[in-house]
Amino acid sequence: MTAPVIVLVRPQLGENIGKAARAMLNFGLVDLRLVSPRDGWPNPAAGPAASGADMVLEQAAVFDSVAAATADCAHVFATTVRRRGLIKPVMTPEAAAAAMRAEAGRSAILFGPERSGLETEDVAVARTILTVPINPEFGSLNLAQAVVIVAYEWSRGAALAQPSAIPLDPPAPQAELDGLYDHLEGLLEPEGYFEPIDRAHVTKRNLRSVLTKPGWSSNEVRTMRGVLTCLSGRRQRRSNASSS
Amino acid sequence: MTAPVIVLVRPQLGENIGKAARAMLNFGLVDLRLVSPRDGWPNPAAGPAASGADMVLEQAAVFDSVAAATADCAHVFATTVRRRGLIKPVMTPEAAAAAMRAEAGRSAILFGPERSGLETEDVAVARTILTVPINPEFGSLNLAQAVVIVAYEWSRGAALAQPSAIPLDPPAPQAELDGLYDHLEGLLEPEGYFEPIDRAHVTKRNLRSVLTKPGWSSNEVRTMRGVLTCLSGRRQRRSNASSS
Repeated sequence: MTAPVIVLVRPQLGENIGKAARAMLNFGLVDLRLVSPRDGWPNPAAGPAASGADMVLEQAAVFDSVAAATADCAHVFATTVRRRGLIKPVMTPEAAAAAMRAEAGRSAILFGPERSGLETEDVAVARTILTVPINPEFGSLNLAQAVVIVAYEWSRGAALAQPSAIPLDPPAPQAELDGLYDHLEGLLEPEGYFEPIDRAHVTKRNLRSVLTKPGWSSNEVRTMRGVLTCLSGRRQRRSNASSS
Repeated sequence: MTAPVIVLVRPQLGENIGKAARAMLNFGLVDLRLVSPRDGWPNPAAGPAASGADMVLEQAAVFDSVAAATADCAHVFATTVRRRGLIKPVMTPEAAAAAMRAEAGRSAILFGPERSGLETEDVAVARTILTVPINPEFGSLNLAQAVVIVAYEWSRGAALAQPSAIPLDPPAPQAELDGLYDHLEGLLEPEGYFEPIDRAHVTKRNLRSVLTKPGWSSNEVRTMRGVLTCLSGRRQRRSNASSS
């Protein structure tokens, strides 16, 4: 499983080259190739936009043709939204990433200039067209954002950096939940909360299910017990005060 | 299946707000909300960066708090890469998009300021943490690129989305949950529950998390409000009695 090469064909703005490098490194891609960058290379605007992905920029190789930039690649994908007369398979980023992982050999993904996108001649050298499914009424996808989606799809399928979820506390044992419910019921009963009495069993069932729904942990049940104790504590003091 | 709301919390650069709007419209999202944008709103730098997604910017609503921005939302996702002490489920963009499609009610996705990301207080109001799986050695993801990945995942799945069984009772809008929390806090404050005062913000955050976890419906929130009213009502009578 060889990580794909990102090839920016005739990129116009150094800032976008830097942002593309940042997007690549975000998702573990480091092989950046530039075909005839408009403002030459290196480009002083690229570094700041890379926000720390300098390593990708420093390793970036410059070529004078798509053919030269992809000479060592077994699979070339051309990223384009525009439909052309070319008869080639069209893949989503997800399908293309799966293909890159499945196939032997290095893959290259071509991205065109900001303004115009890839020329038909550039697309012609690719075996596959990669199209990001996009809002048909608003198809202008920023270069770095096209790169980030393709890089994201690659890493999503690779083993890179799954988010390590904080293990959730298990729900408290039923006995603790019962304790919370009984505590609350004991406070509500003298208030007439469960009247009328012929409806009491339904009211209690509903209240119980409201307290059951959260799946509160032992800590959370303790917190709620503390809340009830706090509320009832003052009442106790009050009633003592009033009866004294 | 309601399209999610994108909430930029204290965004710093107008350019990034514009790029986020463009990323949203690329994938069919139009509801942009801004919480206390650093440079005010409208921001002259946003329009050019939106590259034609002006409609999203023109419709963008500005709020002075995350609570206000998510008041009508049943599901709040906090986008963050940093680990926190908060015990909440963590989802990938793919899993979060699937959850948004499966659940009834509007979803909101919070994105933090460029430099620092969301504060723990912002994350505390969310039921779920959304984390983009990213290169652990290079975790700085540009704001607009985080937005484009989440929007892309939404539209990617929306294309495949099957009409799913609609939960009968979606979680109550955040505003109703806030009302319940404020009600309880108002009862606990005079009891000294939040002392010592220097710990009060942590105590309040934890209590808020406990009340956020259930995903209580409007009916269930009403039930809990009734419980609190019942408990406080008698206290009121008591205090009247004792003071008469």
